[in-house]
Amino acid sequence: MSDPQQTAQREVAEGHLSLTVAAIHDFARGATLLATGGGGDPYIGRLMAQAAIREYGQPDIIDIENLDDDAMVCMVAMLGAPTVLSEKGSSGDDIDLAIKRLSERIGKPFDALIPVEIGGVNSTIPVVAAARLGLPLVNADGMGRAFPEVQMVTMNFEGISATPFVIVDEHANSAIIETSDAKDAETFVRAVAIQMGLSCMVSGYAMTGAEAKRTMIHGTLPMALKLGECIAAGRKAGDPIEAVLEYFNTSKTYGFAREIFDGKLIDLRRETTSGFSVGQCTLEAFSCDQKTMTIQFQNEYLIALEGDTLRAVVPDLIMVVDRETAEPIPVEAMRYGQRVKVLAAAAPAALQTPQALKYISPKCFGLSYDYTPIEALSQQE
Amino acid sequence: MSDPQQTAQREVAEGHLSLTVAAIHDFARGATLLATGGGGDPYIGRLMAQAAIREYGQPDIIDIENLDDDAMVCMVAMLGAPTVLSEKGSSGDDIDLAIKRLSERIGKPFDALIPVEIGGVNSTIPVVAAARLGLPLVNADGMGRAFPEVQMVTMNFEGISATPFVIVDEHANSAIIETSDAKDAETFVRAVAIQMGLSCMVSGYAMTGAEAKRTMIHGTLPMALKLGECIAAGRKAGDPIEAVLEYFNTSKTYGFAREIFDGKLIDLRRETTSGFSVGQCTLEAFSCDQKTMTIQFQNEYLIALEGDTLRAVVPDLIMVVDRETAEPIPVEAMRYGQRVKVLAAAAPAALQTPQALKYISPKCFGLSYDYTPIEALSQQE
Repeated sequence: MSDPQQTAQREVAEGHLSLTVAAIHDFARGATLLATGGGGDPYIGRLMAQAAIREYGQPDIIDIENLDDDAMVCMVAMLGAPTVLSEKGSSGDDIDLAIKRLSERIGKPFDALIPVEIGGVNSTIPVVAAARLGLPLVNADGMGRAFPEVQMVTMNFEGISATPFVIVDEHANSAIIETSDAKDAETFVRAVAIQMGLSCMVSGYAMTGAEAKRTMIHGTLPMALKLGECIAAGRKAGDPIEAVLEYFNTSKTYGFAREIFDGKLIDLRRETTSGFSVGQCTLEAFSCDQKTMTIQFQNEYLIALEGDTLRAVVPDLIMVVDRETAEPIPVEAMRYGQRVKVLAAAAPAALQTPQALKYISPKCFGLSYDYTPIEALSQQE
Repeated sequence: MSDPQQTAQREVAEGHLSLTVAAIHDFARGATLLATGGGGDPYIGRLMAQAAIREYGQPDIIDIENLDDDAMVCMVAMLGAPTVLSEKGSSGDDIDLAIKRLSERIGKPFDALIPVEIGGVNSTIPVVAAARLGLPLVNADGMGRAFPEVQMVTMNFEGISATPFVIVDEHANSAIIETSDAKDAETFVRAVAIQMGLSCMVSGYAMTGAEAKRTMIHGTLPMALKLGECIAAGRKAGDPIEAVLEYFNTSKTYGFAREIFDGKLIDLRRETTSGFSVGQCTLEAFSCDQKTMTIQFQNEYLIALEGDTLRAVVPDLIMVVDRETAEPIPVEAMRYGQRVKVLAAAAPAALQTPQALKYISPKCFGLSYDYTPIEALSQQE
């Protein structure tokens, strides 16, 4: 048997990624880690992708550099509250319909699909869509993690229109939203999503290959697979969390990560409101040296405070994992008494620009902190 | 000068209707009466229609019988809460955009426009739209009055799809809703309308001339003009309310009307909530023979109770008018101390069918009464 870590490295190096039914398992787990709490139950996303690959075959994964400049691409995703996503599956017809409506509206067929985020179920939905429609899937995404809102993607930061933006439900109801501002699109889409029951399929950000190359984060799909493989290999070797941290620390996209807390979940407030899973959890440290940590979330983990001290904040990645197995714990899977470690990783460079921070700084989530990169916070200790 | 009542009768008889700038005044007032409390401020609608006619010329009004069977028609209207409608005008560009988006979606141009309701501002918006776009306006509507929701129209009762249904705001944001059920369309459209600020332009019910002929209420546009002229003539003759009642009692479409209350407005609860103007008013009788009357409304007046006794209920028309001038009083113009008469008129036959009552019976508005026609209620006294 080959070492999965080596296999993934080879695949990344060669620009090839083969999403076999078996690989989807690690891919979905890695994507759940990158989802930083959001993105829904990986079990659902994994089952859907595996079923689609068995029925329709593996989709071609193409590197974004190989995409024709005048190719038409779009993103496809599930939108809603992860708490609901984990209770409602998808027939796949809703995914097809979201893309069909967008194609009708722009008057062109799509040549390929691109994930909007490399996080949770929204890493596997594009695999399902690509398999079903026989379209290639582009190895890139618009976040390098997961975010809760339509405007929080690199394409928007760089001026690509989010709309026409299509939202459909399981009854084949649909809405096509058109706005000049992606935040307005989010407002209208969220209002419809709430009425549709918060587990909807969406498509948008129709653009050319040239636009996708210019604005998206390249090469992120193998990262999810690699992370999943690191966790699996790390479990065999006895320290999966160390394996995860090493992956991030040697990644060109992230480049820095560390453990910021080790403790037990002692309190949790989680509501499905305004179209999101919103709330906060409290963690008690195992070490006497550490104060209690609170983590706030809006689908994704947004901010980690130890006592009053900022330990990590959006857009950096805050990841809560099982302290023994490094199993990523999404917001909706948090339970009283869980023994967890909290990891933080640097956001990709594309999320740290002044233009990006207009849309994804802590203030955009109603937090009263400025963005301070995890590297700087680590040096302050 | 010709007698306006005679002129209107002649126009109806001949199947012609000329909406001059001067005629719009009476037309808007009559439409406000038929709006039964909803439909917004007639002053705004009148100004918009008069400005459009001055700038673009009078639109042709064609009788629905003269519409080609294969002509494409649609409705265009303002949607929201009348309390907001009366504070926000329209540039007209939003009206054009609503029709353009619908035309793009169905892939055909429209040959004519049809009012969805003959009530309030939604009788004058189609005049504005027809004048701006140089399209004829069809002499018919889908209610013979006003109703607050998308599914509450004769076209829906008879199986015409409400969708694609377009909603646009003053910033040229738009949404195209597609559902298999008009009530679902209402749900999604209302959610978007709330986010758009509750003063939106909509278009929908794209259909052929044959479908419009089969499902709509014919010849209602001149009725609004006629009612406005009756009020004007009645004021000169000294009894405008009697003139209004006589019009309804001799109308083929309505056929029955009576005064059900004479009193003073002593209490008013009116909220803009869930996308509507909702509440109730209480009237104290001038006569010792009458108990206090309460009227509940959801944009439109829905039910009039004298003590515990049902005096009139939707879909029959409940109209609150100034007791001296018969000036119709919309929900948003109600004020403490107003001296009013309450009139009730029979709903057009198309609103009284079992199929229609599935969508517009009192229970559809959350009321615990069965529909009892005003004629029957009058005989019970």
